[in-house]
Amino acid sequence: MGSGGEGNGDGKEQNMAAWLVSVNTLKIQPYQLPPLGPRDVRVRMKAVGICRSDVHFLKTMRCAHFVVKEPMVIGHECAGVIEEVGSEVKSLAVGDRVALETGMGCSRCRYCKGGRYNLCLEMKSFAAPPVHGSLANQQLVHPAELCFKLPDNVSLEEGAMCEPLSVGIHACRRAGVGPETNVLIMGAGPIGLITMLAARAFGAAKIVITDVNDHRLSVAKSLGADEIVRVSSNMEDIDEEVIQIQKVMGADIDITVDCVGFSKTMSTALNATRAGGKVCLVGMGQNELTVPLTPAAAREVDIIGVFRYKDTWPLCIEFLRTGKINVKPLITHRYGFSQKEVEEAFEVSARGRDALKVMFNL
Amino acid sequence: MGSGGEGNGDGKEQNMAAWLVSVNTLKIQPYQLPPLGPRDVRVRMKAVGICRSDVHFLKTMRCAHFVVKEPMVIGHECAGVIEEVGSEVKSLAVGDRVALETGMGCSRCRYCKGGRYNLCLEMKSFAAPPVHGSLANQQLVHPAELCFKLPDNVSLEEGAMCEPLSVGIHACRRAGVGPETNVLIMGAGPIGLITMLAARAFGAAKIVITDVNDHRLSVAKSLGADEIVRVSSNMEDIDEEVIQIQKVMGADIDITVDCVGFSKTMSTALNATRAGGKVCLVGMGQNELTVPLTPAAAREVDIIGVFRYKDTWPLCIEFLRTGKINVKPLITHRYGFSQKEVEEAFEVSARGRDALKVMFNL
Amino acid sequence: MGSGGEGNGDGKEQNMAAWLVSVNTLKIQPYQLPPLGPRDVRVRMKAVGICRSDVHFLKTMRCAHFVVKEPMVIGHECAGVIEEVGSEVKSLAVGDRVALETGMGCSRCRYCKGGRYNLCLEMKSFAAPPVHGSLANQQLVHPAELCFKLPDNVSLEEGAMCEPLSVGIHACRRAGVGPETNVLIMGAGPIGLITMLAARAFGAAKIVITDVNDHRLSVAKSLGADEIVRVSSNMEDIDEEVIQIQKVMGADIDITVDCVGFSKTMSTALNATRAGGKVCLVGMGQNELTVPLTPAAAREVDIIGVFRYKDTWPLCIEFLRTGKINVKPLITHRYGFSQKEVEEAFEVSARGRDALKVMFNL
Amino acid sequence: MGSGGEGNGDGKEQNMAAWLVSVNTLKIQPYQLPPLGPRDVRVRMKAVGICRSDVHFLKTMRCAHFVVKEPMVIGHECAGVIEEVGSEVKSLAVGDRVALETGMGCSRCRYCKGGRYNLCLEMKSFAAPPVHGSLANQQLVHPAELCFKLPDNVSLEEGAMCEPLSVGIHACRRAGVGPETNVLIMGAGPIGLITMLAARAFGAAKIVITDVNDHRLSVAKSLGADEIVRVSSNMEDIDEEVIQIQKVMGADIDITVDCVGFSKTMSTALNATRAGGKVCLVGMGQNELTVPLTPAAAREVDIIGVFRYKDTWPLCIEFLRTGKINVKPLITHRYGFSQKEVEEAFEVSARGRDALKVMFNL
Repeated sequence: MGSGGEGNGDGKEQNMAAWLVSVNTLKIQPYQLPPLGPRDVRVRMKAVGICRSDVHFLKTMRCAHFVVKEPMVIGHECAGVIEEVGSEVKSLAVGDRVALETGMGCSRCRYCKGGRYNLCLEMKSFAAPPVHGSLANQQLVHPAELCFKLPDNVSLEEGAMCEPLSVGIHACRRAGVGPETNVLIMGAGPIGLITMLAARAFGAAKIVITDVNDHRLSVAKSLGADEIVRVSSNMEDIDEEVIQIQKVMGADIDITVDCVGFSKTMSTALNATRAGGKVCLVGMGQNELTVPLTPAAAREVDIIGVFRYKDTWPLCIEFLRTGKINVKPLITHRYGFSQKEVEEAFEVSARGRDALKVMFNL
Repeated sequence: MGSGGEGNGDGKEQNMAAWLVSVNTLKIQPYQLPPLGPRDVRVRMKAVGICRSDVHFLKTMRCAHFVVKEPMVIGHECAGVIEEVGSEVKSLAVGDRVALETGMGCSRCRYCKGGRYNLCLEMKSFAAPPVHGSLANQQLVHPAELCFKLPDNVSLEEGAMCEPLSVGIHACRRAGVGPETNVLIMGAGPIGLITMLAARAFGAAKIVITDVNDHRLSVAKSLGADEIVRVSSNMEDIDEEVIQIQKVMGADIDITVDCVGFSKTMSTALNATRAGGKVCLVGMGQNELTVPLTPAAAREVDIIGVFRYKDTWPLCIEFLRTGKINVKPLITHRYGFSQKEVEEAFEVSARGRDALKVMFNL
Repeated sequence: MGSGGEGNGDGKEQNMAAWLVSVNTLKIQPYQLPPLGPRDVRVRMKAVGICRSDVHFLKTMRCAHFVVKEPMVIGHECAGVIEEVGSEVKSLAVGDRVALETGMGCSRCRYCKGGRYNLCLEMKSFAAPPVHGSLANQQLVHPAELCFKLPDNVSLEEGAMCEPLSVGIHACRRAGVGPETNVLIMGAGPIGLITMLAARAFGAAKIVITDVNDHRLSVAKSLGADEIVRVSSNMEDIDEEVIQIQKVMGADIDITVDCVGFSKTMSTALNATRAGGKVCLVGMGQNELTVPLTPAAAREVDIIGVFRYKDTWPLCIEFLRTGKINVKPLITHRYGFSQKEVEEAFEVSARGRDALKVMFNL
Repeated sequence: MGSGGEGNGDGKEQNMAAWLVSVNTLKIQPYQLPPLGPRDVRVRMKAVGICRSDVHFLKTMRCAHFVVKEPMVIGHECAGVIEEVGSEVKSLAVGDRVALETGMGCSRCRYCKGGRYNLCLEMKSFAAPPVHGSLANQQLVHPAELCFKLPDNVSLEEGAMCEPLSVGIHACRRAGVGPETNVLIMGAGPIGLITMLAARAFGAAKIVITDVNDHRLSVAKSLGADEIVRVSSNMEDIDEEVIQIQKVMGADIDITVDCVGFSKTMSTALNATRAGGKVCLVGMGQNELTVPLTPAAAREVDIIGVFRYKDTWPLCIEFLRTGKINVKPLITHRYGFSQKEVEEAFEVSARGRDALKVMFNL
């Protein structure tokens, strides 16, 4: 088993990470690695992307039901190069370029045993407090089974994109996207766009995407949307917009993926989807939504929830390797790892607009 | 092909039906039968139950998206005795006691071909305007394929109960109720109780049922609920009631069937159901609901819609024949077919309380 | 409703068809059309392909459990132009170019109601005795709902290919082919090749195809197989060939489609497929097979049967329209409709070898 | 955490086990326990049943693809009482009566992550060489997560029956047995009977069971089979027996479970099952079977494999606790743990006939 050498975790070089210490405050501070277990690898981080949830944590110290009570290393979309492997690790070697799946379940509960480990109540995952995240300038100790080797033609930045891409893939799997489904996607932000790319890779017959923002829609169009529809944020426009969306689709809408998650988007989704179709709720705009649930149920439009992903990295990498999915155009901004750059990167990501994916190169 | 004879539709005896002519006005008036087609049968109605939707029609001239624009014969839960069979009918004979499935699809659309004929957009069904219902004192012409022969040990009243029972069975099928599922049922009205009976017949491991009404809960208990929980109609009580319901279940709630359909019941349902579970929306209390959809989606609690039923009559009859389901205790009131009795029957049914199923004996 | 006119079925021109009268004997003889029902259309045949089962009928007067007892018009892969529409037909018009689905179920049985009408025991389908086929030089009366309009960029010959393509699509649907499945196809004959094209259109990750014939394999390669494997017809070679096939796939084989149907091919299929995978049996080489069923079952390799198809024409046409599938290279021979040409066409088709799809242009 | 004490593994009392040392030779010899890990428990065996596969191992030193190369402790159907718990075990305590699930997967492969851990290629399971079995007179060290606490009204012998019962449950789950399925079971040996009990608990509408042996059939009848059919072992009788079986069922056979696994039983199963039905292969009589696979595939009769079970213990225990399943009548013979008794027990079990389940009381 290798250890020691130039710049490893033994101390010659200091490992630094971006710590979320309080609302709106990230500090680059030393991050002491845990010891390398027999089934772990030590990875030098090379690319870490900023997710909407990272921004949410930064602004409120919480996200969904997670609350940051102690300073926590942030970040969870990442890829790097292996610098050391544990004594029992056989599938990976020093020098391998890997994308990191973010977490793993207990392997013992009904969810883990039943093939839905993403629902494990004891899941340990990057930046899900109290577990630290992955925005560290040098190294990370991670279970080997969560590190997936990248082929030569897939870059480390693309590797870091496996995480958001996994969300889109999990949604497509759960909703059953395939060559026989026309898909409506609500929202052309990063998750909307990535879900669109995933739906395309799953063979969706036709994809229509909506947003309130013309720029985002034009990006969506350039990335392969069949049709785009500009919508308002006004509840009164729902009926009219549903008609317009259905007209633009020109066929039954089998599956709608709401990547926004507001009363307006879900109401539109429920009304626009054909009887017997599915609406997949991915976005988390509001906690409580006011929606026409009864008429949707009376047409057997089912609502499918999506939480993270499970067993998606191999498929992501395959899609990237074969070019079925190209995530590069989504990476709009790149930063280094100084205190100033980290702050700016989060600002740019939070502002949204022309920023889709903001990436750190470490 | 037989025709003519004593008391058939040719005129010796006048066929009368209960016509919905305007809000709150039912009139018993002559009802001219359509001609008997080669695949039709003529059925003398013997038992017709009153459904919640019949009452809704009576009070508002509409139900869901259906609007009564011309006088319409009401009623759709029915059973009777065959008096005449069309020239091509081989499976049935004069004298057979049959339960009547309410409608049928076009057999050509994607829904009919795909096994979901209940979603057919051209479905013709009893009392779905402009199609007339079945509350006629003598006869009805109906496709033979929608008439299911009753075994000797199943009464005509039980036969009429196949319709509401079908709703419960369809919900159980769609949600996947079986020996490995603990089921929560919201609402102990007729549909809630019947869904409970269906869930039991599908082998549900444990069933908890809730209602705001103690009497209904005690009926539920006597009909086989494992546990009952009295709830309020106050939104503020949701969190506490969820805890109480989960405690009473004593295990994960895998499936919840909301037979009420209000913001409160659906919110409770979504919060009480385990991650990865399903909430089935059957009740249609409100059109628009305000519910914590996002946290439910984030636990992959899926929402399953239910519209009517498909291919349920044979299973209903089998459950009744074998005694796996006993619907008799649900029939609390019986009426004849005079103008006065019809009016009273609808009043009693509308009032609810101790009235579960109100049945006409014709 | 149009009727009469030039060259319709009323008699001005004689409608001729290819009748199977006895073993190895096809005769072109007049074929009297049935009357046009209100929901029927009259179609002038333009392209009819020869299927393996047509050849089988010709050589033995039987196919599967069907036995030809009276002279029967042969043929069932067809497309044409509408010349007359029934009084109730609204979706089609004279002049429409259509592909013809071959048959339809009773719409009343458990299979029809359950979404599996291909299993209907009363299915009426082209050239399934006593129902006549479609190799008629002029016209056919067919239910409008079974006639699917072709877009401008899909030829009538391609339209006729919807029938064999439907078999491949139905196999892919039943087996669950998608972007996450590596597919092995046994046999590079017409059905094997067409299943390969279908699997590709369903997004199969990787496709390996086997055959005993080098020419067929080279065709398969040119049509898009990722890898080809030359196999023998010798049972002793199974183990070695399994190893070779798995090596060439370089990953788990998730789904195998046996388009041959011999003990050797099924044994290879069962042994080569990964635990938990599926083997789909499409070919019908032998009735009774000797196969290592127990070890396959002990790895939960399921065997999936395929009979015809259901609701596939719209998807076929969509695949042809978008170019996701190109069937043109499969049409290797074309014939007119004289007695001599019909005989020669069947001979060429029966001989196999370089002949893939033999097509009549009428 | 406690260790040491009266009669634990530290040595005061010698732990003995039944070792399979060579063909037909079992020897009771000392068995050194492995050290107790933090998540393990030490269990004093109380009830161990003999399985058909144990007998197979004894007679041939192999079973399925497993080969015994070194002496191996035999046995895998077991229950006992916890005597010591590892430092991290919180769910169990000394004195708990538990049934032992036999093995567990790697938790990292596609099968484990996908909810099919029974197919894990690195599964470690009792008496699957080189892993030792559980027929030890005193103690066993086993992962706590594989030990399931028995309720007061479930005996240790019943607990040991969870293993064979799991096979029946897994078959019912995979085949989809429920209140809408008529089930045919081939073979009234222990696995056939137990599958019948499981099918009943899953709500099977009607169950017919076949065997060559009248005594077994009469046991099946007494345990709840709706109908029994005596069959021969003669291939020529298949057609006639299929007719008889179908007649006795009096309805479509939706699911057949072949608990024998010979050409004859599978041929009967395939021919008797309705179009679109399923045949589940559980028995492993022959490796290679000669069966009419093609006509079955042409009716879309799917063949479902079954290997062991997954996540079945909780359901078994629930069925035993509620009395939905009563396995006690299956336990026909009981033995102690002397060399002589062990030999006799295996002889009796191997002989079959009136012996169903032979149980050791330790």
